[in-house]
Amino acid sequence: MNLRQIGEDELLRKIAPHLPLNRFVLSGAGDDCAVARFAAGDDLLLLKTDCVVEGIHFTPRAKARDVGWKAMARPLSDFAAVSGLPEFALVTLIAPATTALRWTTDLYRGLEKAARAFDVAIVGGETSRTDGPVALSVSVAGRVEKHRWVSRSGGKAGDELFVTGRLGGSIRGKHLRFIPRIHESRWLTKHFRIHAMIDLSDGLGADLPRLASASKRGFEIDEASLPRTRGCTIWQAISDGEDYELLFATSPQDAGNLQTKWHRKFPQLPLTRIGRFHQPSTINHQHLRAGYVHFK
Amino acid sequence: MNLRQIGEDELLRKIAPHLPLNRFVLSGAGDDCAVARFAAGDDLLLLKTDCVVEGIHFTPRAKARDVGWKAMARPLSDFAAVSGLPEFALVTLIAPATTALRWTTDLYRGLEKAARAFDVAIVGGETSRTDGPVALSVSVAGRVEKHRWVSRSGGKAGDELFVTGRLGGSIRGKHLRFIPRIHESRWLTKHFRIHAMIDLSDGLGADLPRLASASKRGFEIDEASLPRTRGCTIWQAISDGEDYELLFATSPQDAGNLQTKWHRKFPQLPLTRIGRFHQPSTINHQHLRAGYVHFK
Repeated sequence: MNLRQIGEDELLRKIAPHLPLNRFVLSGAGDDCAVARFAAGDDLLLLKTDCVVEGIHFTPRAKARDVGWKAMARPLSDFAAVSGLPEFALVTLIAPATTALRWTTDLYRGLEKAARAFDVAIVGGETSRTDGPVALSVSVAGRVEKHRWVSRSGGKAGDELFVTGRLGGSIRGKHLRFIPRIHESRWLTKHFRIHAMIDLSDGLGADLPRLASASKRGFEIDEASLPRTRGCTIWQAISDGEDYELLFATSPQDAGNLQTKWHRKFPQLPLTRIGRFHQPSTINHQHLRAGYVHFK
Repeated sequence: MNLRQIGEDELLRKIAPHLPLNRFVLSGAGDDCAVARFAAGDDLLLLKTDCVVEGIHFTPRAKARDVGWKAMARPLSDFAAVSGLPEFALVTLIAPATTALRWTTDLYRGLEKAARAFDVAIVGGETSRTDGPVALSVSVAGRVEKHRWVSRSGGKAGDELFVTGRLGGSIRGKHLRFIPRIHESRWLTKHFRIHAMIDLSDGLGADLPRLASASKRGFEIDEASLPRTRGCTIWQAISDGEDYELLFATSPQDAGNLQTKWHRKFPQLPLTRIGRFHQPSTINHQHLRAGYVHFK
């Protein structure tokens, strides 16, 4: 059975009953718009969209569940980067009419699993045919308390730079099955003042310059200190991409205390001081620009 | 110059300064999540995503500006269907690396024009390569006052059914350049009780059964009364699809007054009574099921 044989309405009828909801949803998939309560108080609305494309973000041999997980986890990782709480997701599936129904329902299982893991409701979406490879676009809405919102631009001269986890080699499997660092990010802003943060999707070599540039800071990195995935070189840790770990800047006064408390709270997940921000300079950091850049 | 030559970051630098914003946006394209104020009071959060795919929703010969307009206007039409106010949009562009930069900037001009027409801010997005046809996914967030939210499911037996505009023949050009009926929809719920509403994207033949089924009603249509685009047959008016007009149900008590006031307010846009809801029945409406169904 493929998507042509089942058709769009019947596919929706098959998938919709399983979609995770949460207590805020008034009307989910099936009406023209999804409708939800957003009793904000002082909270800010967060919006993010991300996509995965066959041949770019996953191979045709990847398991459908993993592809679904990744498609949902990618925008959730961006919520981690701003210390936000994701709440509602919209899923767009663009696929050939010959796509197997079983592959499609497995894909949604992966999407649902990632959504449930962070109490995100899947409130709607869209399907379309294509003559090209499968593409999956996921948009997520959520919230953050005004005083806990972290942007890329708040980094200060002297700030220490930290990364979570280990870098490099994600192509071996982590790029499909990574955990968005939402819990860690929420804990960070609950207990510390995080000046600037980004999630490492294109690799430290591409994303650190973005963070520094948004903060209008220069940076220095102790390359030997980079927490590498087992078997990876420093170069791979800098340039492989798709780590989906957090890179953040905090004041040196907070740094020691943060590291102690972190190791107590998240004993399984390394937190590594990798360098610092300084005043903007003319030093050429071009050698770090090694991460993944789309269309190149 | 094509997308491979310019790269993702540079493309963003070219496009981002032109993106429309509005007074609610705190952080638009460029950070990990878009951030906006959503001082809701009793308002509800609305979310919708829609996509256009080359070869399905537009031909390679379509003007890039029209494609951009359509990609934005499609989800806005869904906001009209629930009588909501769209506020923030996210745009995902999936395109071959060989796509011309000029085509891409024209595409964004079309997106921006449609957004500005309804005071929608474009707050972020995503670009990815593909080896297949161009696909453009647009997600929109916005709001509706609790008492003005219209779903598909509120239709009552005896309700009169109305459509705006004229049906059929949109392939000749309207499918690319239609106006989302947001102003009309907002006016309707300001002055009348609209029981159920939908926008006609797949054609009356597909969308009326959806509205009736959500409202658990049977329906009868006076086919001769259907407002047809010049040169279109009744069959085309029922089955062509992509009209993006509103179909709604309201009580017979309101119907006459509504039509009088409508013609005074929107003298250029026909409003036509095309039939009514009745109790659910076993009458077979299969002959109306003629609209566009994806993957078929």
